[in-house]
Amino acid sequence: MPAGGVVLRGKQQAALARIHHQMTTAREVGDLLAACEADRTIMESGSAEAANVREIRRDYDKATKLPESLVSELAQVSSEAQHEWAKARKASDFAHFLPWLKRLVQLNRDKAACLGVPAGGEAWDALADTFEPGCTAASVTAVFTPLRTRLVKLIAELREAKRGPSNRFNETALPIDLQTSFVRMVTEAIGFDFERGRLDASTHPFCGGSHCNDVRMTTRYCETCLNDALGSTMHEAGHGMYEQGLPESAIGTPLGTAVSLAIHESQSRLWENQVGRGLPFWKWCRPHLVSHFGSSVDTFTVDELYGAANIVEAGFIRVEADEATYNLHVMVRFELERLLIGGQLDPADLPTEWNRRYRDYLGLEVPDDRRGCLQDVHWSMGAFGYFPTYTLGTLYSAQLFSAARRDLPGLEDGFASGHFAPLLKWLRTNIHAHGRRYSPAELCTRATGKPLSSEPYLEYLEGKLRPLYGL
Amino acid sequence: MPAGGVVLRGKQQAALARIHHQMTTAREVGDLLAACEADRTIMESGSAEAANVREIRRDYDKATKLPESLVSELAQVSSEAQHEWAKARKASDFAHFLPWLKRLVQLNRDKAACLGVPAGGEAWDALADTFEPGCTAASVTAVFTPLRTRLVKLIAELREAKRGPSNRFNETALPIDLQTSFVRMVTEAIGFDFERGRLDASTHPFCGGSHCNDVRMTTRYCETCLNDALGSTMHEAGHGMYEQGLPESAIGTPLGTAVSLAIHESQSRLWENQVGRGLPFWKWCRPHLVSHFGSSVDTFTVDELYGAANIVEAGFIRVEADEATYNLHVMVRFELERLLIGGQLDPADLPTEWNRRYRDYLGLEVPDDRRGCLQDVHWSMGAFGYFPTYTLGTLYSAQLFSAARRDLPGLEDGFASGHFAPLLKWLRTNIHAHGRRYSPAELCTRATGKPLSSEPYLEYLEGKLRPLYGL
Repeated sequence: MPAGGVVLRGKQQAALARIHHQMTTAREVGDLLAACEADRTIMESGSAEAANVREIRRDYDKATKLPESLVSELAQVSSEAQHEWAKARKASDFAHFLPWLKRLVQLNRDKAACLGVPAGGEAWDALADTFEPGCTAASVTAVFTPLRTRLVKLIAELREAKRGPSNRFNETALPIDLQTSFVRMVTEAIGFDFERGRLDASTHPFCGGSHCNDVRMTTRYCETCLNDALGSTMHEAGHGMYEQGLPESAIGTPLGTAVSLAIHESQSRLWENQVGRGLPFWKWCRPHLVSHFGSSVDTFTVDELYGAANIVEAGFIRVEADEATYNLHVMVRFELERLLIGGQLDPADLPTEWNRRYRDYLGLEVPDDRRGCLQDVHWSMGAFGYFPTYTLGTLYSAQLFSAARRDLPGLEDGFASGHFAPLLKWLRTNIHAHGRRYSPAELCTRATGKPLSSEPYLEYLEGKLRPLYGL
Repeated sequence: MPAGGVVLRGKQQAALARIHHQMTTAREVGDLLAACEADRTIMESGSAEAANVREIRRDYDKATKLPESLVSELAQVSSEAQHEWAKARKASDFAHFLPWLKRLVQLNRDKAACLGVPAGGEAWDALADTFEPGCTAASVTAVFTPLRTRLVKLIAELREAKRGPSNRFNETALPIDLQTSFVRMVTEAIGFDFERGRLDASTHPFCGGSHCNDVRMTTRYCETCLNDALGSTMHEAGHGMYEQGLPESAIGTPLGTAVSLAIHESQSRLWENQVGRGLPFWKWCRPHLVSHFGSSVDTFTVDELYGAANIVEAGFIRVEADEATYNLHVMVRFELERLLIGGQLDPADLPTEWNRRYRDYLGLEVPDDRRGCLQDVHWSMGAFGYFPTYTLGTLYSAQLFSAARRDLPGLEDGFASGHFAPLLKWLRTNIHAHGRRYSPAELCTRATGKPLSSEPYLEYLEGKLRPLYGL
């Protein structure tokens, strides 16, 4: 959007938020819900109808707790704040963004108060629950704390390792038009349906669309970044295949809708990492790479390609982070937003607290706020309670993949010869087909037999990285 | 949109059309209009308020004549038909599109009947009036008939001419990234405000956006098509500058809205042709071209560049046509849609009648329907009565440019040194600032002193092309 459009866009967003809020909180919706809930034939235990009613009730109760004025102000302020954040980031000028951050923190504290803090919980929980049903700061902390200890230790060991994979493949310039057709071929091979979706290019990769038959995603290219393009595309394709796998018959109802951000992220991470950074994938991929790019790549062995996709190096930017350091970026944000929403951290002190954690967890001195606390768009969009879903998704991805391997013997051998369909089918059955029928926690237990834990992830990560770094 | 999205998109479009129709035809709007019309302080002759009331009344009366079912059916059918048309065009399969065309013709005949045929007029007039207030088949014919005679004669003479401009510049391959920065520079130089607008690339150039401070346009590039990219961009920038020139204070009201398609097209054609295909423009442009593209272009003289932008050659495709033949393409479509809506032409006979006219007017044997009657999207979108606005806009552009030259001595000499601002200012004052305050015909008379005529256009065109072809 050009700068001139900012103010009116804010008003448009506020107007849309108001109309949307009026429609979702209409008394008629409440009356219809009550009538359904009173009808035993609808509410029959375990039925699809009952699940739909339960989820519509959940949305309705949340929406009716929020006053229209707050909904509309949040929409307007976050629309304008995004633009001011972009300016502040470009200039690395935290002071410019600070007044907007203060307003957004206060509006989100108000929002949490309206939604109601759960018994024994805290304000942050009320916000997180809108992205991830059932998510609380306490439950996140219980998973994150041991994970952090193990990750910090692992990363330190990798940093000190005497040998490690070569980065040479990642320095190879490859024409962008060939990269474009290559990642499209991979996307099709893993199961994204181009009859019901598109892939385009944009500055920041994303996946959107309006229903399972119209999924739009983007990726990004630069000449020496094939692995970035490939990883981003497989990531977005993971999101896209989840959307495509939601049941067509349930379009427009909760059962036709993704259940949570963490489950969504589990799908993207699974295809990006468990599949796309695995040795079997590269066995399949190498001949295609050579037939596509010819002599510029044919000197790389499968092992070299596999290694180049798994280099660990701590950096400042979350979206450029490797698999191992990524979660530490997320933890920093979770801890800080929890303090902001809890009122224990003054927004003005954000840079100091941010930089201190980057030093402690990643061993890095943040040089400026552009590469520090101004790097992410989320808070400027008014989204607090969102960040942990990235790491929860990563943990779900490892636990789901481990369960799929258990259920499907020879799964990874199949990847080496291009058989990705069994995995997609397993995900369709265990995750996609259910929409919002089960909560994220139930979905996890049904598919894997256990509640979410960081063990499968740590096992996967250490099992892969230690050998690559000769540990 | 991926193919899978077509059916639901049709339903979404129908739902939106229904909601929009309900809102625009609400009794409350009628009551408010009646109250305004009864208030003398509002309806004071010549006031902005009176003009706004008059135009809202015009829209309201049109909308209330249409039943909701027809509005919604038209939205749904044209959404699906566009997709079927795209398939039919690709396969050059008119039979595939015929059932959709029949349905769209019938729905538009129903629409015309609801809107009411003006006294002494015909059904087509009722449809054309929704795009171009006051436009009738009789008024179009009165302008088109003499124009066609002169154009057919001129084109025949040019075809027989012993000499003409060289096409060599149009065969020069130029890198697309440099073309992109070059056309952006030109767009900025002629006055498009990038603080309030964007320019991107797409398959078909267009200009859209939601108000004067947020105008989005696209152009297209291929290595040997700089003149196409330049012409398309200046064309869209003409549309864009009109939108940017609408008064900010009137956003959301008729006075903040473009008055008609022909006036819109007059702005795009004026910058594309009267400015961008003129000798003074190329005097200014050549040094920029050389500094941008270097040795691949520095052998071309100003006269050669000017000539290369003005080559006349009859072809099958309207959107690729030169200035002289373009209008004959439009006339074919006008004649045929008039017959379709009047019921004198069976849709099944469209290809025959189309091809006969291409033979008579342009001396061409149409090889297939892909390059014939299936080439344009308009009818598949349900837009009948739209085509003539392209030629009316072309005529307006010449008449307006002639008036601007009269009012601003030395205008074109200024172009040679990059002074385009006086022209933009003249258009701002005479056209853009008024929005829908005056009808297209009034706007023309106020700005040029005369009603619309084809004389200024023919004078301009013959005055330019005859010398270039040594006639």
